[in-house]
Amino acid sequence: MRTTQLYAPTLRQTPAEAEVVSHQLMLRAGMIRKAAGGVYTYLPLAWRVLRKIEHIIREEMDAADGQELAMPIMQPAELWQQTGRWDIFGEEMFRLQDRHGRQFCLGPTHEEMITSLVCNEVRSYRQLPLRLYQIQNKYRDEIRPRFGLMRGREFIMKDLYSFDKDEAGLDVSYKKMYDAYTNIFTRCGLAFRPVEADGGAIGGGHTHEFTVLADSGESEIVYCSACDYAANVEKAELSALVPAAEEMQEMTMVETPGTKTIEAVAQLLNIDVARTIKAVAFQNEKDELVCAFVRGDHEVNDVKLQNAVEATALRMAEDPVITAAGGVAGFMSPIGMHKDVKVVVDLSVMEMYNAVAGANQVDRHYKNVNPQRDFKDVIVADIRLMKAGDPCPHCGAAVKMTRGIEAGQVFKLGTKYSEALHATFLDENGREKPLVMGCYGIGVSRTMAAAIEQHNDEDGIIWPAAIAPYEVVVVPVNAKNDEQLQLAEEIYRELKAVRVDVLLDDRKERAGVKFKDADLIGYPMRITVGPKAVEEDAIELKLRRSGEVKVCGKNEYLDQVTALLKEI
Amino acid sequence: MRTTQLYAPTLRQTPAEAEVVSHQLMLRAGMIRKAAGGVYTYLPLAWRVLRKIEHIIREEMDAADGQELAMPIMQPAELWQQTGRWDIFGEEMFRLQDRHGRQFCLGPTHEEMITSLVCNEVRSYRQLPLRLYQIQNKYRDEIRPRFGLMRGREFIMKDLYSFDKDEAGLDVSYKKMYDAYTNIFTRCGLAFRPVEADGGAIGGGHTHEFTVLADSGESEIVYCSACDYAANVEKAELSALVPAAEEMQEMTMVETPGTKTIEAVAQLLNIDVARTIKAVAFQNEKDELVCAFVRGDHEVNDVKLQNAVEATALRMAEDPVITAAGGVAGFMSPIGMHKDVKVVVDLSVMEMYNAVAGANQVDRHYKNVNPQRDFKDVIVADIRLMKAGDPCPHCGAAVKMTRGIEAGQVFKLGTKYSEALHATFLDENGREKPLVMGCYGIGVSRTMAAAIEQHNDEDGIIWPAAIAPYEVVVVPVNAKNDEQLQLAEEIYRELKAVRVDVLLDDRKERAGVKFKDADLIGYPMRITVGPKAVEEDAIELKLRRSGEVKVCGKNEYLDQVTALLKEI
Repeated sequence: MRTTQLYAPTLRQTPAEAEVVSHQLMLRAGMIRKAAGGVYTYLPLAWRVLRKIEHIIREEMDAADGQELAMPIMQPAELWQQTGRWDIFGEEMFRLQDRHGRQFCLGPTHEEMITSLVCNEVRSYRQLPLRLYQIQNKYRDEIRPRFGLMRGREFIMKDLYSFDKDEAGLDVSYKKMYDAYTNIFTRCGLAFRPVEADGGAIGGGHTHEFTVLADSGESEIVYCSACDYAANVEKAELSALVPAAEEMQEMTMVETPGTKTIEAVAQLLNIDVARTIKAVAFQNEKDELVCAFVRGDHEVNDVKLQNAVEATALRMAEDPVITAAGGVAGFMSPIGMHKDVKVVVDLSVMEMYNAVAGANQVDRHYKNVNPQRDFKDVIVADIRLMKAGDPCPHCGAAVKMTRGIEAGQVFKLGTKYSEALHATFLDENGREKPLVMGCYGIGVSRTMAAAIEQHNDEDGIIWPAAIAPYEVVVVPVNAKNDEQLQLAEEIYRELKAVRVDVLLDDRKERAGVKFKDADLIGYPMRITVGPKAVEEDAIELKLRRSGEVKVCGKNEYLDQVTALLKEI
Repeated sequence: MRTTQLYAPTLRQTPAEAEVVSHQLMLRAGMIRKAAGGVYTYLPLAWRVLRKIEHIIREEMDAADGQELAMPIMQPAELWQQTGRWDIFGEEMFRLQDRHGRQFCLGPTHEEMITSLVCNEVRSYRQLPLRLYQIQNKYRDEIRPRFGLMRGREFIMKDLYSFDKDEAGLDVSYKKMYDAYTNIFTRCGLAFRPVEADGGAIGGGHTHEFTVLADSGESEIVYCSACDYAANVEKAELSALVPAAEEMQEMTMVETPGTKTIEAVAQLLNIDVARTIKAVAFQNEKDELVCAFVRGDHEVNDVKLQNAVEATALRMAEDPVITAAGGVAGFMSPIGMHKDVKVVVDLSVMEMYNAVAGANQVDRHYKNVNPQRDFKDVIVADIRLMKAGDPCPHCGAAVKMTRGIEAGQVFKLGTKYSEALHATFLDENGREKPLVMGCYGIGVSRTMAAAIEQHNDEDGIIWPAAIAPYEVVVVPVNAKNDEQLQLAEEIYRELKAVRVDVLLDDRKERAGVKFKDADLIGYPMRITVGPKAVEEDAIELKLRRSGEVKVCGKNEYLDQVTALLKEI
C-alpha cells in the first residue's frame, strides 16, 4: 500500500472529547471516527489491526476444535423471556420492533440463541463436546459510553460456547479455552494476566478474566510475584490475619471527642490504626442497614460484602437509616445495634485482641474490645479488600497490585441456560440430561484499544508487530529526489515480494511530517531512504519501540528486516 | 476437518416452510437455521462458503484500489433526515431508540454514513479518487421475507462507495467496479450477465445489475445472442416495429358481440392479433385513469408506463374509474375518451395501418384504425415489454429471454448525496465542488443462495469448487474396516498437506448414508476408499457435477485431484 492511496486522516491536535490515550491516539492516527456516543467507524488502519487480531483468534479457536458460525445480531425477544434476561438486562439492552410489532433485541451476548440453536439438534452424548464460536458486533446501551473503544455501545466480540456431557467435559473445554486465550494474547504481543474473577450477572461459577496490564485500566488486580496467583481485587480471597495472642483486658468506654475518623481515634489514643476496628455503613436495595466492620488499616470489599448479605445492590447508608437502626454515625459498634441489623465482621477483626471500636454513643469509643468475647449475633465473613503486601492465598508471599483492562473472560455456565431452554441430550445410559455449558468471550475492538493503552509513548502508538496495521513503513526523505524515490520503491517492492506487510510513504511532504505520522501511527519499523542510502549504501532501519537505528547495505537489509520483525 | 467434529445437522425431509430450492437445500444440508422471519444463523458449512465468497470479493476490491473499513450498523437518524430518506424508507427501515431517546436505524445501506464520514476530511482533489468498502450485515424490514436467504431481513452485503472529482473520474471508478464484479462472479463459478437496469429509489442514473442466471430468479432479463447486450426486461428499450406501408382505409364500426379479449376479436374478425390494438387500463396514485395501448400481440411494461406518465404507483383500473372517464371496459379506444384522461400509445401502435381497436361502446370495435390519422391528444412512448425474438437494440439480432437473481449492482450516484450532506472538495482551480459518487453492492448471502439455485440436481447442491465448503470429501466405505480407515486417513492427511480443502467422513455410518450426505451438501469431489482401493490400489474419484468416476492408484491420485480441481 502507498500512503497517497491510504485513507488515514491524521490529526495534529488531540480532540478534546478523548479522555484516555487509546482513544486520543486512534483519533489522531486516523484509525477511528465517532458516529454517535459509543458507536465508531473503523477506518482502514484500525480495520487492518482488527483483522489481524481476528485472524489470530480464529487460528487458536480452530486449533481448540472450535467451529465458526454466525448467529443473528437481531434476536427475537421470546428466547430472552424464557431465561428471564429480557427483564434483567433492563435499559442496557437495545430493543426494537419489526413492522408487525414483534419484539427483538440487538444481541448483547448469545447464550440464549446458541442454546436454542443446538437444542433440537444435539441429541446424543456422541455429538459432544461441541464448541461453536463467532466474531461479530455486539450491542450494549451503556449509560455513559466512554473511553473510545474501551466501553462502546457497538463493539466487536468473539464469543465461543462449549457444550459438554458433564462437569469433567466442561473442565476440558475450559482448560482448552484458557490455553487458547493465553496463546492469543501472547501472540498479540500483550502483557496480560489471567485472573480469578467474580461471576457477575452472567450467572454461574468459575471464571477467569484475561486482563491486559495497563495503568489506565478499570480493573484492579492483585498478583503474586512468587507463584502464578492473580485475581481481580473484587474476587481475591483472604484468610484471617492472626496476630500474637494477648490476654483479654476488660472492656472500658473512653471519651473521644470529635474523632469521626479511625485515624483521629488512633492518634488521640496513641495506638496503631491496625489495633482499631472501622465501621462502614451501607443500605441494601430494601434500604435496610448493613454494617461492615474491618480492621482500621483495611478497606471493605463491596462485592464480597454484597455476597455475604445476599444483597443485589449496596450503597452508602444515609444518617437517618443508621439512626433508625440504633446506630450513631461515626461511632458505630457491633455492640448495641438493633437485633435485626445485618452486622458483618471481617475474619481478621475476629482475631484481634484488646482493640478500639466505636461505642454507639457520640464521642465515645470502647477500649479492649475482644471480638471473640464481645461480638454477639454477627455475620463473620471475608469482606476486606486485598492490598499490596497481603499474603498470597496460594503461597503466602506478599502480593502486588496492578491495574488492567479486561479483554477476555472464560466462564463455566453449567446448566443454567440449558435447563431454562430445555436443551437436553441422552447420555451413555439413555438418560436425558441438560447440556453442560461454558462461554468464552474476547473483546476484539477492546483488545485493540488495550494494546494501545499498553504500548504508547509521547509520540504515539507502538504496535506489537503481530497486530500492527503495517509492519514496516518505507520513507524516502526527500520526495523530490528521484534516486531516493526509486530506491524506496525498490525496497518497497522487494519487501512485498517476501510478504512483509509494508507501506510506502510516497507523499510529497517534508520528511518531518512523514516521520511524525510514522511515529504517531506506530509502525514497528521505519526504513529511512535518505542521501546516505543513495550515496553510501547506508539504509536506516529504525525501531519504533527502542528508537534504535540499524544501518545496513542494500544487499543485507532484507535479512535484517525479516530477522528484526521476528524479534520485536 | 472430520465429519464427526463438524456441526452440520442434515435433514432427510424437506422442511415445509421452504419454497425455493436454495432454501430447501440449505436447511437440509445443515447450512442455515431460521431464528425469525428473514433472520438466519449461518452454520459452519454456510459460513465457510460465505468466507470464501468474501475472500474473492476482498481480493478484487483491493485490486481495484478499494480500501476496507467498517462503518456502524447502528446509525443516527439525523443523517438520514438530512437526505430525506428517514421518511422515504418508511416501514422498510428498522428503527430503535437508545436509553436517552435518541433515534437510530439499522443500516439498510450506507450512503449517508460514508458521505458524512469523508465530508470533513476529504478536502482536496489530490485525495481523489477514493474507494471505500465494507462487508457487513444489512437490515431491511421486508413486508414478506421469503425464499430463505434470497430476501432476508438481516443479510450480508459488500458495499463500496467511490468518490471522484468529476464525471470522467466516476466513469473510471464505475468501469473498475464493473470489471471487478465480472471477475468476482466468474471466480465464484457462476453463469451471470451484467444487465442494464432501472435506477429505482436509490436515485441517480446509470446502473447495471449483475444477474446470476437461474430459472427460479425473480428478475426477467433479455439478452442478445449476437452481441453483449443484456437488460432487465423492465428497462429494455424498444424502437417501433414498422410494418410495410398500406393505403389507409376509411374507419368503420363493426359489431363484435361478447368479445372482451383481443384474441376473441381477432378470431371473430379473422385477422392476425398483430393487427389489433389492445387497451390496458390503470389508475395512478391519485386514482386518475391511465390508458395504455399496445399492439394485440404485445404486453405493457408497467415500469416504462409509470415513467411515461410520471406516476409514483400504478394499479389495474377499477370499472367505475373507467366509466367516469368516458371509457367502456373491454372496448376502450383512444377515440372518444374524456380530454383529461392520460392516453399512452406505444411506438409500434403508431406505425400500424388499418388496425382493429375498441370503439368505446359495448360490443363494438372500429376497423381500419390508422393511429397516425385517427389518434389525437395522446402520449406516444415506448411502453411495451420486450419479448423473445424482438430485435436487439444494439445490433438488431433476435433477443432471448431468461430469468435470474440480482446478486450485485453498480450505480452512478452523481452528486445526490454529496449535495444533500455538503460534502465538497476544492478542485485544481480552488473551486468548491460536490464529490461525485458511485455505489456498488454485492449481496454476499444472496450470492451463496443464487449459486445453489444455479447449481443443483435432485440429489442436492453442486458447489463450484471455488466456493464449496470443502473441495473434497474422503469417504471410507466400511467404517469398521481398519485398512480402509487407515488409507482414508492417509489420503486425508496428504491432501491437507498440499492445501486441498478436504473433509474426512469418519462417521460410523453405512456407506449409503455418507454418500447421500456428500451429494446433498455437494462437495465437488468425493474420494471413495472401498475394498478395491485397499486390495487393487484403485481409488475412486467421483465428480459431483458430472457423476464421472476416475480410478487411479495411490501414487497418482494427488496429481489427479489437484488437476481436476482446477478444471471443475
